[in-house]
Amino acid sequence: MTRVFLILILFLPSTLQAEDPLPSWNDGPTKASIIEFVNSVTDKESEYFVPVPERIAVFDNDGTLWSEQPVYFQLLFANDRVKALAKDHPEWKTEQPFQAVLENDMNALVASGKEGLLKILAVTHAGMTTDEFAETVRDWLKTARHPTKKVPYTDLVYQPMLEVLQYLRANGFKTFIVSGGGIDFLRVWAEDVYGIPPEQVVGSSIKVKYEERDGKPVLVRLPEINFIDDKEGKPVGINTHIGRAPIAAFGNSDGDFAMLKWTDRKSHTLKVLVHHTDDKREWAYDRGSHVGGLDKALDYARQHHWTVVDMKADWKRISPSGPDSD
Amino acid sequence: MTRVFLILILFLPSTLQAEDPLPSWNDGPTKASIIEFVNSVTDKESEYFVPVPERIAVFDNDGTLWSEQPVYFQLLFANDRVKALAKDHPEWKTEQPFQAVLENDMNALVASGKEGLLKILAVTHAGMTTDEFAETVRDWLKTARHPTKKVPYTDLVYQPMLEVLQYLRANGFKTFIVSGGGIDFLRVWAEDVYGIPPEQVVGSSIKVKYEERDGKPVLVRLPEINFIDDKEGKPVGINTHIGRAPIAAFGNSDGDFAMLKWTDRKSHTLKVLVHHTDDKREWAYDRGSHVGGLDKALDYARQHHWTVVDMKADWKRISPSGPDSD
Repeated sequence: MTRVFLILILFLPSTLQAEDPLPSWNDGPTKASIIEFVNSVTDKESEYFVPVPERIAVFDNDGTLWSEQPVYFQLLFANDRVKALAKDHPEWKTEQPFQAVLENDMNALVASGKEGLLKILAVTHAGMTTDEFAETVRDWLKTARHPTKKVPYTDLVYQPMLEVLQYLRANGFKTFIVSGGGIDFLRVWAEDVYGIPPEQVVGSSIKVKYEERDGKPVLVRLPEINFIDDKEGKPVGINTHIGRAPIAAFGNSDGDFAMLKWTDRKSHTLKVLVHHTDDKREWAYDRGSHVGGLDKALDYARQHHWTVVDMKADWKRISPSGPDSD
Repeated sequence: MTRVFLILILFLPSTLQAEDPLPSWNDGPTKASIIEFVNSVTDKESEYFVPVPERIAVFDNDGTLWSEQPVYFQLLFANDRVKALAKDHPEWKTEQPFQAVLENDMNALVASGKEGLLKILAVTHAGMTTDEFAETVRDWLKTARHPTKKVPYTDLVYQPMLEVLQYLRANGFKTFIVSGGGIDFLRVWAEDVYGIPPEQVVGSSIKVKYEERDGKPVLVRLPEINFIDDKEGKPVGINTHIGRAPIAAFGNSDGDFAMLKWTDRKSHTLKVLVHHTDDKREWAYDRGSHVGGLDKALDYARQHHWTVVDMKADWKRISPSGPDSD
């Protein structure tokens, strides 16, 4: 009897640890706010109980599920594509914004502005079929490395957020990405990396056109913006693709502010901002940052008691692998 | 022993009947083609086995899941809305296309053409928030009756197709609507009637705009077409909302032809056309019909051995309730 009891005691701690749904989160009010929310909407006795079909959670991608420094990774993909395509475009050596990309001249690239960006987008993201584009993204992800971290981009996802995705799904949530990034860029790898299927990815898009080539249907990507899923566009994208309001939303910048406010319309919801505070393990930035600027949403979140993740204090580790992993 | 055997025999027929996944379909090659397809993609030993996440099935709505005569039901909703709003618009009595609607003058309405239709769309489908629009559709469905069948519109769904939806879902499929009709019109009732959640409805849309009214976010519906999910638009809508190719597609008109061809790109897929052949229990029409015209797709389907449903011969009953039900 005593022996059985001892064995139970010995096994108890590891059992409890195994049951922690968010093992990479330090204990504290941030982690507690997520767990309390999930408990309250899944407990049938709770006044805040939400039926499974309405358990919709939305996640920004850049800066919320993976890193976004020194610039959005999709821009680095575009730069790499310009360099790969340059051998067939000798004229780019003296033509902006391509010259800037080929010479790694960031000042000239920034100076080319929105018009320059659209030119890069047109040659790197349009003019091919949807299947060909997906193949290009897939190939790039296999070989490309982050300029300073020197690891594949998909290694730069946040382990604590992977745990949140998994935890929500285990509790009947459908998890969606709602990103300013390209929907067709994300869909190539979101299922493998995040467990989020293509039909649950919302993002910016260019127009596509149906054609039959040798009797075989294809969709051709056109150099024309279709939809920008950022700022006030995020609630629009949610309405278009999901058609009902989320009860949980995760973002990290003012670009996510409207999405979090849209989620906040319902009475009992979870709004989370990831605050980049860790200049050692990741990056530290907020107000005035050229990517992922977080200013108005941060003030509003604090005033309205939204959940603000202090990356440095709240996260035991950042990425699934790498120097800071177990 | 003999007695047990007898009991088994007695219970066998009802057991087999209960296991028929498509009880409203008459036995024959049409029903068999659907069941054989589902068996082949769900059997792990089959060369055609498809993993669950890739089991995507798409359904046109008008004429495929519910009736579409004398005109698309959403147009009858728009007409009813014009009549309801007319008391605040005395000028409509002498202004086309509104006068035509108020006087039930179909010739004048048709004569107003696409421009007339857009004017009706603007006053009946735009100018309100998304929540207000959904409420209007919900209220209309409760009270409106079909002009000749004299039943609620949602009674005019096809029982055999409800069984197909259920059968596919029971076999791991995700079922989507891909309709030329309005996405926000469909989403109000698709979950109750078809078991298809809002995030699995693809349709035509108008633009919406994010606004804050008294600090509360709303989406306002604008009188501007965003996307037409018909003909070559259907593969585009599938790409936007689903992001991967379906393996099964159900339609009934040339408006679904591109969607079925898009599905046909993969090697082992199911393409089904519902052919309206039953002028007694439903309607009979195909080539040259002003709604649901079926011409080129019918020829192609027969040449390429797609499944063509002969409504009169293949369906034991049409609607879940009503004179033809059990």
